[in-house]
Amino acid sequence: MKIISSTSNQYIKSIRKLSSRKERDRSGKFYIEGIRLIGEALRTDFPIESILYCSDLLTSGFGKNAIEEGEKKGVDIIEVTKDVFLSFALKDGPQGLAAVGIQKLVNIEELHNLKGLWIVLDNVQDPGNLGTIMRSLDGVGGKGLVLLGTTTDAYHPTSVRSSTGALFSLKITKMSLMSFSEWISKENMPIIGTICGEAVNYKKYDFPQDMILLMGSEQKGLGKELLDMCEGLVNIPLKGSVDSLNLACAVSVVLFEIYAKRQTR
Amino acid sequence: MKIISSTSNQYIKSIRKLSSRKERDRSGKFYIEGIRLIGEALRTDFPIESILYCSDLLTSGFGKNAIEEGEKKGVDIIEVTKDVFLSFALKDGPQGLAAVGIQKLVNIEELHNLKGLWIVLDNVQDPGNLGTIMRSLDGVGGKGLVLLGTTTDAYHPTSVRSSTGALFSLKITKMSLMSFSEWISKENMPIIGTICGEAVNYKKYDFPQDMILLMGSEQKGLGKELLDMCEGLVNIPLKGSVDSLNLACAVSVVLFEIYAKRQTR
Repeated sequence: MKIISSTSNQYIKSIRKLSSRKERDRSGKFYIEGIRLIGEALRTDFPIESILYCSDLLTSGFGKNAIEEGEKKGVDIIEVTKDVFLSFALKDGPQGLAAVGIQKLVNIEELHNLKGLWIVLDNVQDPGNLGTIMRSLDGVGGKGLVLLGTTTDAYHPTSVRSSTGALFSLKITKMSLMSFSEWISKENMPIIGTICGEAVNYKKYDFPQDMILLMGSEQKGLGKELLDMCEGLVNIPLKGSVDSLNLACAVSVVLFEIYAKRQTR
Repeated sequence: MKIISSTSNQYIKSIRKLSSRKERDRSGKFYIEGIRLIGEALRTDFPIESILYCSDLLTSGFGKNAIEEGEKKGVDIIEVTKDVFLSFALKDGPQGLAAVGIQKLVNIEELHNLKGLWIVLDNVQDPGNLGTIMRSLDGVGGKGLVLLGTTTDAYHPTSVRSSTGALFSLKITKMSLMSFSEWISKENMPIIGTICGEAVNYKKYDFPQDMILLMGSEQKGLGKELLDMCEGLVNIPLKGSVDSLNLACAVSVVLFEIYAKRQTR
């Protein structure tokens, strides 16, 4: 058992650096905080490099169990002082439990003969939206996400937190628009795009069993190249003065409609 | 036309103070930023005390029109230097247009014989969630919101921004749980609560035309006192590993189901 008491310890420094996307991309690691998230990562056998805890902050029995479980799985368990924990903690009122996870992106080569419900996001900017979308997708038993272009990082701390652990269950992959275009031309997976303009009311669309739901960015929606790949386009008709919904809410509304239609088939 | 060049000008100081709830509650004012939001506030004749702009930052013709329109409506128009604007701006890449709005909470005495769809939120903590809920409620043509207990402030800058202007169209009121209990005992308005536990699938519930959708906090859901006021309880059945949805997403999923049922009546 190691105990780290210096905030300038090399490993502690490397954890703080995980707040930057550049460092996450370089190292292939990411930061996880909080008892429930770490419990969920362990439950789903998600790869974890280390669990860090602070005895002064960690009072929850569930949290202490998580450490034991991690130890059994061969995860590096590191005790740190309160000062050290607070040097990387992101939560207000931190619970004294954090971890370093290993990013688990699926290779495009593994994505063949997909089944079930997938989401493809293009240029989505807000990591909170991305995490919330993962949470809803997992809530309907969806399979995974393809992140296109400059879409924000699934391993951003805000995305990880908002996903409430869905990140550990879903398959996640990143692609350029060009790779996606090539990939989809070989796969027999229908793409249904969601847009703000003229399209079929999502309530009336006959969604296929295996499909990709495609959403564009908060600001710009879907570009022409992606629109051309869609087998169908749906929208969510609105009343009132707003001209669109929050992206994660729009995704959720459509996802739960798809899900409900499946239940009644 | 006034031009303010000092960040320590009294009025500019008072604007910066609007980031604190205490000051918003005391003054009854709030801060609005961005061209679209201010355009929407003007369109809906929402009470605005002043519009502040910075020529160096404001390039949009739509933004300049908003100033003219505000002037016609008798709003105080104040030009400020870039330094001054940046001293209160909250957005990255500010557009050079901001305003001070006057809070417009509806008195409980005015709430009689309500019609349409209302939302009551108890102890919701996240202003982003609150704003997003307003956006979705406006999107289905809902009437208004009642904020109970320690629910976050509708005029928090994050709530204002996330509402994308729905805040200016909806009726909003605050009540203690006790006032709400008294009020509802006199009104003939059915309350449908949304919970995570045992309840009717929201897809199968026969929602009345005029109703209140009641939601509890992100962490704790609904307390017993509120549960007892409900005519019905609905839930959103989930698959996957997550045990709940983001609050704003859950509200949106139920709202759009209620909305769709009305359309097909």
